[in-house]
Amino acid sequence: MDRYLPTIQWIGSKIKIVDQTKLPLKLRYIWCRDIKDVFRAIKTMQIRGAPAIGIVASFGLFLGIKDSKAKNFREFKRDLDRGIRYLSKARPTGFNTFWALERMRKKALENSDKRICEIKDILLKEAENILEEDRIGCRKMAEFGCKLIKNNDRILTICNAGSLATADYGTALGVIYRAKEKGKSMKVYVCESRPLLQGARLSCWELKKRGFDVTLICDSMAADIMREKGINKIFCGADRISRNGDVANKVGTYNLAVLAKFHNIPFYIVAPTSTFDLSILKGEDIPIEERNEKEVTSLFFKSRIAPFDIKVINRAFDMTSHSLITAIITEKGIIYQPLQKNIIEIIEK
Amino acid sequence: MDRYLPTIQWIGSKIKIVDQTKLPLKLRYIWCRDIKDVFRAIKTMQIRGAPAIGIVASFGLFLGIKDSKAKNFREFKRDLDRGIRYLSKARPTGFNTFWALERMRKKALENSDKRICEIKDILLKEAENILEEDRIGCRKMAEFGCKLIKNNDRILTICNAGSLATADYGTALGVIYRAKEKGKSMKVYVCESRPLLQGARLSCWELKKRGFDVTLICDSMAADIMREKGINKIFCGADRISRNGDVANKVGTYNLAVLAKFHNIPFYIVAPTSTFDLSILKGEDIPIEERNEKEVTSLFFKSRIAPFDIKVINRAFDMTSHSLITAIITEKGIIYQPLQKNIIEIIEK
Repeated sequence: MDRYLPTIQWIGSKIKIVDQTKLPLKLRYIWCRDIKDVFRAIKTMQIRGAPAIGIVASFGLFLGIKDSKAKNFREFKRDLDRGIRYLSKARPTGFNTFWALERMRKKALENSDKRICEIKDILLKEAENILEEDRIGCRKMAEFGCKLIKNNDRILTICNAGSLATADYGTALGVIYRAKEKGKSMKVYVCESRPLLQGARLSCWELKKRGFDVTLICDSMAADIMREKGINKIFCGADRISRNGDVANKVGTYNLAVLAKFHNIPFYIVAPTSTFDLSILKGEDIPIEERNEKEVTSLFFKSRIAPFDIKVINRAFDMTSHSLITAIITEKGIIYQPLQKNIIEIIEK
Repeated sequence: MDRYLPTIQWIGSKIKIVDQTKLPLKLRYIWCRDIKDVFRAIKTMQIRGAPAIGIVASFGLFLGIKDSKAKNFREFKRDLDRGIRYLSKARPTGFNTFWALERMRKKALENSDKRICEIKDILLKEAENILEEDRIGCRKMAEFGCKLIKNNDRILTICNAGSLATADYGTALGVIYRAKEKGKSMKVYVCESRPLLQGARLSCWELKKRGFDVTLICDSMAADIMREKGINKIFCGADRISRNGDVANKVGTYNLAVLAKFHNIPFYIVAPTSTFDLSILKGEDIPIEERNEKEVTSLFFKSRIAPFDIKVINRAFDMTSHSLITAIITEKGIIYQPLQKNIIEIIEK
């Protein structure tokens, strides 16, 4: 099973990742050699997409402890926890990072009786497992989800929930890729996804590379094209899903969900189970990252497009109520309404 | 009655206008000396906003015929009609241009028995009347509309429906300005209005100059801030309104109207009666301008933000169904539902 695009690779004790701030004009790779490189790559969004961040954080945590001088597990655990706390601060909303770091922590605890050098090897293996499971999970989500797509569908998506956001196919785009592989024809419309334009820059690039009929729109055009172009399905990724099925995802997703309801268009979320935060009961309790206002006021920190001294909101995510979601596609199956009940059944099975 | 910002001035046989492509960083003026200058200024959106375009087109038509060598009215009429046809092609959606040019044509016909040089003077006077009536109309709309605003309202707007779009206060922003003059306090949130960012560049600039508490958001954040910031009123301008009350306005307006309905927020349109095209029965028959796709794919025609060879939609306007509109504020009064019935009563009174 080949990977769709090697967004994240572990090569010779370094993480090689696609620098997503340079796309679509340049396909550049960067190397993360230590935990600080990883923190910076996540923070500046050289790597982004909740599953991808989770994977990179796992390797980053390994980079953080691989040279630990700890003489016993207590000391090692202190180094590990320091790394976890550090990486947890990079971006607050996407849950996969916390899930992945917690999994690494648990793995260490389970092996606390082993020698430190062995635990280090086990943790590297665990990071590799997280990557590999994400690859397989992408394929499973795609297989479940592609059945929802009919020939000649006109699909809308936002941000980038593709290969660049995961270790393989992607989530929302993975479903679309698989449908095409199965011979279905479709038109894909992409919201540019201000302020950082992941839709325009990343999703259009991926979709074009895969030979799709892809059309870029501004976020403000979504309602117009739902009506005028007859959009009949919407697929989005997710950064964190609460126990009741509320979804935090790229800001603008909630817009689309409301517009979809008005236009009677099925609205699907595609996300691995590692995105579900069952400790949070409802979406309003999901922390929403607020980023530098210059992302809004200065295009890529260069051309200023707004007056100075005004207030700016730059909440990077919004929260879509479970009531607006038709179904959530996971690697364990499709979760239909009532989400609140069915999430528990599917996630914990 | 002083003008709020001299967006359009007639000085010594030339039109002096604010170059709106340079704001907010530079307040530059340009001079239109002939009809071609006017066509270009409208087409490139150095001047924009339906009422402002109508005014400038009237003066532009005068510039087009002022040196006419016509020896009789038939010849003069031919020159006049050529100018009207030419300016009508600059931008297709906003109705005020067609209304203003038709008004100029009628004025000429009414005076066809006069000497050509007299008719020219009459047409210049008519252009000046169109400007002056727009000024007065702005004040009247503002006076009617400001009563809808309560102290501490949190208002959302899109694009620029302010001084820069008219000969005075503006339409949607005029209402807000007047409410502040009457001592009401409010927060104003502005959608940046991709692709050309008239909200970020122009409305934020105007509002800041007038001392407002102004907050810029990306268009994709509208639903989020409606819920999270408790937006309780939306005011937008209009480019053309059909007989049944459907409204063509800056793309994204229809998004806001749907989101407003979902969040139970009153949604107001503010427009002079010159924006109403009673010859068009419903919004779907309003021609929607499609502009250069580079406005979307390359920020201000400089930095490319999307891959090459993809499709792009750049419909500059969208159509909001009358059923989503709470009321339309005109200089003749506020038109409430049912719009279809009340428009005829108010416009033709």
